[in-house]
Amino acid sequence: MKRQLMIAACAALPLCVALSSQAQPQARPEQAIKYRQSVMTLLGSHFGRLGGMAQGRIPFDASVAADNAQLVAMLSKLPFNSFGPGTDKGLPHRAKPEVWSEAGKFKEAADAFQAEIPKLEAAGKSGDLAQIKAAVGAVGKTCKACHDTFQAEK
Amino acid sequence: MKRQLMIAACAALPLCVALSSQAQPQARPEQAIKYRQSVMTLLGSHFGRLGGMAQGRIPFDASVAADNAQLVAMLSKLPFNSFGPGTDKGLPHRAKPEVWSEAGKFKEAADAFQAEIPKLEAAGKSGDLAQIKAAVGAVGKTCKACHDTFQAEK
Repeated sequence: MKRQLMIAACAALPLCVALSSQAQPQARPEQAIKYRQSVMTLLGSHFGRLGGMAQGRIPFDASVAADNAQLVAMLSKLPFNSFGPGTDKGLPHRAKPEVWSEAGKFKEAADAFQAEIPKLEAAGKSGDLAQIKAAVGAVGKTCKACHDTFQAEK
Repeated sequence: MKRQLMIAACAALPLCVALSSQAQPQARPEQAIKYRQSVMTLLGSHFGRLGGMAQGRIPFDASVAADNAQLVAMLSKLPFNSFGPGTDKGLPHRAKPEVWSEAGKFKEAADAFQAEIPKLEAAGKSGDLAQIKAAVGAVGKTCKACHDTFQAEK
């Protein structure tokens, strides 16, 4: 499913090649935890700018939106291989035990997120705020769904 | 296949443009510090894989090298706008006071790093290990030069 979407996306927009080979597991659990937290920080920052524009908190700039959507697309490929076995310990983190005990559901949640990303990238390229708003909303729902289930409160 | 897609993408669309508009300053100093530290963590991870291949510590895989070079290129645009005035305090960090007191020299060091990046990305696309080794060496020197001057010891 995800693969088909990715292939479809890549056929239409060759920018969004699957970069899965970049997201290799890190050697040590603490490296993996630091890595995935860093990805999430950047995802939050760049997706947050799109959210700010979608909600009118930041002035809309089509070029900035496109850049941020492209960055989010690139970053979206990176975190999920860093939740491997044994990476539940090593540094403080907020990933719940369910990430590992319900790995299938976690993968489903990750897949749902990644499935929305090509639409976000396409919306960013379109320069159309209405499309961007719709795509930001759809991606944001998948973020929230995953965090609600698999991320502990601060 | 993936490489061809990427080359096609860069030829057809300005994929490889500088994404400087993404790297807007964060609202609060602690956000800026966390952001730039996250970028550096990812840069270290992905450049580290290229370094591992260049030094023979990791088996050479042309596709993985190309992906990592592309990621490093994208990440290389991000950190330097996050060293704005006032971001010397807010969270523990290793940026020396000279980042701010010698801002011109810091910019020169950042520029030297960024100047080497297109060669790294091209080397990654070439799939030629000798080119990758040369580019990794050149980029690595600019990393070290900047860290030696502007980053405190751990």
